[in-house]
Amino acid sequence: MKCRKCGETAVINMRQHKLALCADHFGQWVPAQVEKSIHKYKMFTPEERVLVAASGGKDSLALWDILLRLGYHADGLYLGLGIDGGFDYSGESQRKCEAFVSKFESSNNPEVASPDSWTPTLHILSIPELYGASIPQAAQRVQRGRGKPCSVCGLIKRHEMNRIAHDLGYSALATGHNLDDEAAALFGNTMTWQVGYLARQGPVLPAQDGFARKIKPLCRLYEREMAAYCLVRGIDYIYEECPYSLGATSIAHKELLAELERRSPGARQNFYLSFLKAKEEGFLDDHQVPPARMHACERCGQPTTAPDLCAFCRLWVRVKSQE
Amino acid sequence: MKCRKCGETAVINMRQHKLALCADHFGQWVPAQVEKSIHKYKMFTPEERVLVAASGGKDSLALWDILLRLGYHADGLYLGLGIDGGFDYSGESQRKCEAFVSKFESSNNPEVASPDSWTPTLHILSIPELYGASIPQAAQRVQRGRGKPCSVCGLIKRHEMNRIAHDLGYSALATGHNLDDEAAALFGNTMTWQVGYLARQGPVLPAQDGFARKIKPLCRLYEREMAAYCLVRGIDYIYEECPYSLGATSIAHKELLAELERRSPGARQNFYLSFLKAKEEGFLDDHQVPPARMHACERCGQPTTAPDLCAFCRLWVRVKSQE
Repeated sequence: MKCRKCGETAVINMRQHKLALCADHFGQWVPAQVEKSIHKYKMFTPEERVLVAASGGKDSLALWDILLRLGYHADGLYLGLGIDGGFDYSGESQRKCEAFVSKFESSNNPEVASPDSWTPTLHILSIPELYGASIPQAAQRVQRGRGKPCSVCGLIKRHEMNRIAHDLGYSALATGHNLDDEAAALFGNTMTWQVGYLARQGPVLPAQDGFARKIKPLCRLYEREMAAYCLVRGIDYIYEECPYSLGATSIAHKELLAELERRSPGARQNFYLSFLKAKEEGFLDDHQVPPARMHACERCGQPTTAPDLCAFCRLWVRVKSQE
Repeated sequence: MKCRKCGETAVINMRQHKLALCADHFGQWVPAQVEKSIHKYKMFTPEERVLVAASGGKDSLALWDILLRLGYHADGLYLGLGIDGGFDYSGESQRKCEAFVSKFESSNNPEVASPDSWTPTLHILSIPELYGASIPQAAQRVQRGRGKPCSVCGLIKRHEMNRIAHDLGYSALATGHNLDDEAAALFGNTMTWQVGYLARQGPVLPAQDGFARKIKPLCRLYEREMAAYCLVRGIDYIYEECPYSLGATSIAHKELLAELERRSPGARQNFYLSFLKAKEEGFLDDHQVPPARMHACERCGQPTTAPDLCAFCRLWVRVKSQE
């Protein structure tokens, strides 16, 4: 297989685009695709500062790398969750993020199209240090040992990412969700016709009072393309999935969509992009869930529909009471 | 596994209903489910005459059997398509329909809750005899040997079923689509977000000027339940699929949904029924395709959007010109 651009040996063949590229041209093609998505979905402008939710995995580090190469002011946020899984999962993830950002700290890294001497910052937050319990510990206490900590983890991450993005004045919080992730989430919501969730799903969730804008710049790229991008760019990321992700519904949905894609290349992309197109054309416009009446949480100040404390603060009250 | 109703050995376990039943109770449960669907979706009333599209397969013969047992006036229509496939597929199918209806021709069949001496009629129509070419021949001529005859077959069947239902004064045309069929069709339309098709999909397509009402009384029953029903009721049907159905997209979609169902019993049912529920609640109301301006086909009189001849009549003009 030859590179469509230069005829050299291709490193990747993207059947859904009928496009094979060599390492160099693939390394240029990916950021160009991301730039297109940023414009198409009006994610943010060059004047705005973006906070990348960096997990140490391939998607978030690739995203951060791409935004920096495109010349955007993108900092990172690593949330230490205190997950061990027998191999210090959280510690390893953090070290991958630190190693990534350290490459940009030399003042004149020619690969970063930064107009000034600015270098990206990695903000690090440790949930166990800040709140006195790791995610598994918190989940264990409130769930009394039943089930996985994933919903507790999601609640905590959403709250803390939003808090930091808001408090540090970032215009948008960027996550590394790729097309496979988005298609799997869409598939899940579609299999049960959660119309309210469908109406909210998209590459941009606009800011609301007290909530940062959420953006997904990788939403048109396949997961395997992000892995290939990390390889081509020499980005070292954590290969292991979160030890709690095993058996997650989203993984089952990804497998089904992968099967659909094997039978019909491009089917997964078509599923997601035709959904976005139908939405642009007004499908679901009338099914936006009306914004609930929000007020500030008495403890943390973030918007909540609950009468006194938000779900995050209520969680920690319960965790403390179980100590 | 024991029957939930009587404790006898169960012949089927329906995991999506958490219900196991013996042969007798399953044979009663299926018609009760169909009766519920007929009422729930306002398909037709006991005063109305229904025409069952009988193919000789398990679904259509089970449907006809169920409607007769429920006391409805249901006749059948067999369309001879002239498909051979090396084993006289069409001839075999017709013989299954004839054998089925002949059981009801004895004047006092106690299993048919008919209030009078009425017995069901099987109308038989032969496409090759009426139009001078079988479906494969017609498709061969207009497609010049390319591709499968399925779209030509669909066009012809829709036209002729509608014509007979209309000309013979039936209130509704009932097809044997089961939940697996409907979920697969929904899946196909969802994978490409065909909003117009989604808006039209449902257990009832109301009559329009010149078009008979279309109903799908088996839409809440799984395919395996229909096979089990035929077994329990001693209905002899044609086991072979149409020889042209191999590799159809709808079969691939059925396999994916079957995989989803294996992982999570009830997922397929939930997918279809939650879609119907969302539609009932107004989802897609604004996306009904406005009725196109129709006028009568110059040749057959059926409504069409085309300027002179409808697609069916144009097809036969082309077939004749290729003789």
